[in-house]
Amino acid sequence: MSTIAGTVEAASEFDRGIALEQRHDEPSVLDADVGGGWQVSKGINGGFLLAVAANALRSTCAPAGHPDPLSISAHYLSPARPGPAVLRTDLARTGRSMSTGSVSLLQDKDGAETERIRATGTYGDLDSLPDEVRTTATPPELPAPEECVAWSARFFDNSGESALLERLDLRLDEESTAWIDGTPSGRGRMQGWLRMADGREPDPLLLLLALDVLPPVTLDLGLGGWTPTLELTAHVRAKPAPGWLRLTHATRNFAGGLLEEDAEVWDSAGRLVAQSRQLASAPRPAQSS
Amino acid sequence: MSTIAGTVEAASEFDRGIALEQRHDEPSVLDADVGGGWQVSKGINGGFLLAVAANALRSTCAPAGHPDPLSISAHYLSPARPGPAVLRTDLARTGRSMSTGSVSLLQDKDGAETERIRATGTYGDLDSLPDEVRTTATPPELPAPEECVAWSARFFDNSGESALLERLDLRLDEESTAWIDGTPSGRGRMQGWLRMADGREPDPLLLLLALDVLPPVTLDLGLGGWTPTLELTAHVRAKPAPGWLRLTHATRNFAGGLLEEDAEVWDSAGRLVAQSRQLASAPRPAQSS
Repeated sequence: MSTIAGTVEAASEFDRGIALEQRHDEPSVLDADVGGGWQVSKGINGGFLLAVAANALRSTCAPAGHPDPLSISAHYLSPARPGPAVLRTDLARTGRSMSTGSVSLLQDKDGAETERIRATGTYGDLDSLPDEVRTTATPPELPAPEECVAWSARFFDNSGESALLERLDLRLDEESTAWIDGTPSGRGRMQGWLRMADGREPDPLLLLLALDVLPPVTLDLGLGGWTPTLELTAHVRAKPAPGWLRLTHATRNFAGGLLEEDAEVWDSAGRLVAQSRQLASAPRPAQSS
Repeated sequence: MSTIAGTVEAASEFDRGIALEQRHDEPSVLDADVGGGWQVSKGINGGFLLAVAANALRSTCAPAGHPDPLSISAHYLSPARPGPAVLRTDLARTGRSMSTGSVSLLQDKDGAETERIRATGTYGDLDSLPDEVRTTATPPELPAPEECVAWSARFFDNSGESALLERLDLRLDEESTAWIDGTPSGRGRMQGWLRMADGREPDPLLLLLALDVLPPVTLDLGLGGWTPTLELTAHVRAKPAPGWLRLTHATRNFAGGLLEEDAEVWDSAGRLVAQSRQLASAPRPAQSS
């Protein structure tokens, strides 16, 4: 099944994680087993689930020569649980240079098929795009990876599952971890380096995971707690060069119990290869004592 | 039909423009007549079409107490034409505080129903959100409206339709119009003031239009031509106060023939009430002579 990126026999943890099986009698429907090993705290990582959904849409759009998600927008309807999932895809349009389709990720809940994520993606061929780059954004300034803090489950004060972090080599800068000692920087920003622990090099689907692996930016504002994603839209703008990725995550509009979070992924060649914006529910402010 | 914002008898041009008629025998399907008077240059304004789609989803989500689009993501599949359109809605989930649904806007093309836009929206009740505002973004610095340039069809050097501009009172700052004299500022930024020419005050659906009415930011980079939207996601964060809106539109990642454009709408009370990000196709660079 060459149009589907992951297989259960793949060498890398990520490719095994996003593996799908296309139904022979109904090729628009794919089966997956999601989330085993991709949980963090109470839930399955939202970027990982987006990569699974994007892999399903890839099977829909790749036959037309459009294997790469240029833009994919996902609405998170209910929390996915580790286990079987069904992905139902629907091709909306195929054009000369792009295809667009939708996908729903569903799981059985008490005998009823329950929708977890609904996403629509516009796919193209990143290799076919012109080379010109006029990006004016600048990459985050970060100390070298070995001078950053290796982020791991030991920073969690609860006993929740954090298998995701064992699959990542994530290094945060000093300001991004200051909240651990009770002195959050207040920048409303997280930044750091990422590579996969098993050496799997980045590609467009892995960038979708990378956009959502930093700790919630609310920690840097002194707010602990869960920030469930309502909607996340990702743009993948180029195939990343091998090596470390630089990540940033920031909020500029935290209001009314909701916050927007903008993420960027820069590759080792200094290119802004992916961007996302999400709308999330804010944690309740801690009561002043 | 109290759940649908616009009616054909409405006093304002905008409300007449987004008017929908729900089918009695099939309430998830709505009929519209789009774009008459909302064209600019070759196409119908994408923000206006988003408002029409959002109005249809409003009819789906409002009965559950969730009338306002908190986040709506639209993929633009083919250019809409002025005339009849059918909107097919699908409610994905209704929860305690939010509902999510999808909508397709379709038009007849040579006898075949052709999809123009596919959007998914998460709706809630903006009035029910907590009052706390921690926004760190800052509003654009603009001279008073009367010191800005009134933007109108006279700046177009083609004979294309530009009816949209007659419905807006749009005032741009000096830098945002410098490209007219061949000296674009190069900031990759447009900014100005907006109110509706007929005095219609802003509300959540009008904000969707406001997010997409500034001239393409590419003009400020010295590139003329059409920048068709592939995907646009809008967040509506608060009901706007009456009066002038301040708009900004900027790009930071123009590469590979595509550009991301971020828009903000600030209300007269100084609140960041709406944000959007779109992925658009870049105009071809002018050949150097």
